[in-house]
Amino acid sequence: MSNIAELDTPAVLIDLDRVEANLKRVQDYADAHGLKLRPHIKTHKLPRFAKRAVELGAVGITVQKLGEAEVMADAGITEIFLPYNIIGPAKLARLKALAARINIAVTADSAQTVAGLSATFAGSTKPLTVLVECDTGMGRCGVQSPTEAVALAQKIAASPGLHFGGLMTYPAAGQVEANAKWLADAKAALIAANLPPEVVSNGGTPDIWRAHEVKTATEHRPGTYIYMDRFQVAKNVGGFADCALTVLATVVSRPTENRAIIDAGSKALTSDTLGMTGFGLIEAYPDAVITGLSEEHGTIDLTNCPTKPAIGEKLRIIPNHACVVSNLFDSVTLISGDQVVETVHVDARGRVD
Amino acid sequence: MSNIAELDTPAVLIDLDRVEANLKRVQDYADAHGLKLRPHIKTHKLPRFAKRAVELGAVGITVQKLGEAEVMADAGITEIFLPYNIIGPAKLARLKALAARINIAVTADSAQTVAGLSATFAGSTKPLTVLVECDTGMGRCGVQSPTEAVALAQKIAASPGLHFGGLMTYPAAGQVEANAKWLADAKAALIAANLPPEVVSNGGTPDIWRAHEVKTATEHRPGTYIYMDRFQVAKNVGGFADCALTVLATVVSRPTENRAIIDAGSKALTSDTLGMTGFGLIEAYPDAVITGLSEEHGTIDLTNCPTKPAIGEKLRIIPNHACVVSNLFDSVTLISGDQVVETVHVDARGRVD
Repeated sequence: MSNIAELDTPAVLIDLDRVEANLKRVQDYADAHGLKLRPHIKTHKLPRFAKRAVELGAVGITVQKLGEAEVMADAGITEIFLPYNIIGPAKLARLKALAARINIAVTADSAQTVAGLSATFAGSTKPLTVLVECDTGMGRCGVQSPTEAVALAQKIAASPGLHFGGLMTYPAAGQVEANAKWLADAKAALIAANLPPEVVSNGGTPDIWRAHEVKTATEHRPGTYIYMDRFQVAKNVGGFADCALTVLATVVSRPTENRAIIDAGSKALTSDTLGMTGFGLIEAYPDAVITGLSEEHGTIDLTNCPTKPAIGEKLRIIPNHACVVSNLFDSVTLISGDQVVETVHVDARGRVD
Repeated sequence: MSNIAELDTPAVLIDLDRVEANLKRVQDYADAHGLKLRPHIKTHKLPRFAKRAVELGAVGITVQKLGEAEVMADAGITEIFLPYNIIGPAKLARLKALAARINIAVTADSAQTVAGLSATFAGSTKPLTVLVECDTGMGRCGVQSPTEAVALAQKIAASPGLHFGGLMTYPAAGQVEANAKWLADAKAALIAANLPPEVVSNGGTPDIWRAHEVKTATEHRPGTYIYMDRFQVAKNVGGFADCALTVLATVVSRPTENRAIIDAGSKALTSDTLGMTGFGLIEAYPDAVITGLSEEHGTIDLTNCPTKPAIGEKLRIIPNHACVVSNLFDSVTLISGDQVVETVHVDARGRVD
């Protein structure tokens, strides 16, 4: 094994001990509350971590793209949830091929999506499970009311080739009570319509420790919890010592007393601010502020730093948003402490469709 | 040939006719003003377009990473400028290997960078050309004054294995006069020090039509001009009809009267706003606003649209920043009008080091 200090930069480091602890901590929480866990692999895009989550007790995984599902199915994962409106002949054909070899479920929030799914799966020996996506406050996809949820559930249940599987939401962070009420109302309306939902799937890492307060939910789909990041720490989901993904960068310039430039820009850290100031936390210089990114340069303000990094010094940075960083690197380096374990290809990176 | 309407989404479309027109327009401008052109390939990351620019008269290309230089050298490009501080044994070894097979020049803005380059190239049969990077207003890398530029030029000239090549800047957009004055002062100081610069390399697309006003510059390194984007249009470099890169996306949800969701999020359009409102221009619905992106969803406000897109409809979007989009897709589809010509691998995508 070599020391991480010997790695060329920029590089993504994944601390295996923290990954394991993060996976276990949330699985233990879910177990304690009788919640099923269906982790989202968008954060890591690595079959090995998807499998490890299942070994620890997850009932399956969540993906966001057919391409991600294909990679995970190829790796031997058999229970996959794809909470997305799958539309158009090319994607429907890929979905049908996946359904023939694994258990896959999807979501719909419109009659148009349901019609396309039904036309594809009518006559199949195994019906496709379809959940109704609900907009419980996020303002993205989803039916707008429990009444609409019932109507779409009835349509799914009446559609050849489809099986109504329940409800799914990706809730707005911090709106636990509103999310819980929405789902409870929808479940009651479905029961009244004689369509009790088998699954009520809730999601997100920011409110993971309050997931049990959403009593109607049968399962949760956290993603970022495996790596954590600066945003999740800002949301008090954990501390910086729980962050498993860091970007290793080199100081390439110190043009002024209070400015450093690193070789990690938006191609390494992404422009995501998620409403925060700065583009990441520099572990060894917590008072430094990454004030700007261009594609290959990160600009750092050292004004508040009692000591300042030298040219050639390597810095570990906790990014604002770990998931988007995983999508930018063809490979990541697994580490334990400061030792390199293995550099691995990010198999599900760049699966855009 | 098939119609672009048959493509699955999200996809990146590159209009070949617009690429050719954009390349020619800027080459003609440079020729008319006696400026050499050394286009930056970060925007397209495709050897074919690098070669086409050279065929049209460019004196070579600019890259931002050793990995990009390696891809372009493999494709037969022999004149490459890498305006970056190359630091550390791994990168210096790669630079030396590149210098053995092509003509490559780099920049430095510190004695530390110069020392590493000299230690690597001392004793080489062919000295490495090193330009001094100047901070003429951008506030990124670069020496801070003409006096510092002269001192570093003297150090380069006195270093075994190195050849002082001149000055390089990536200027702040809109600060043409300040940039011109800085470079003129530095050139005068270098002449006084008996180190006249062979090359003064200016860069950037936003002020491309004023490049000739920077009289000291011998060459210009524009990047985005080949594709253009919403930011360059905002800077009046061209119009939307000049934009060669569009992202094709599908409307996957219409949860409310004034909201549409597309299958292009930050993994397709990136979070770059470059100070603008919204995350791109939807060609067919110019009054629509892309108000938010998550990784796989784009949220669109249709309030001001007289007609509104339907579920399943495909939209072409001019992104805020074309260069970062090129880095997110393993392949792009070359088109002519609305016809598909060829889908090609983006060879220099993801070259992080």
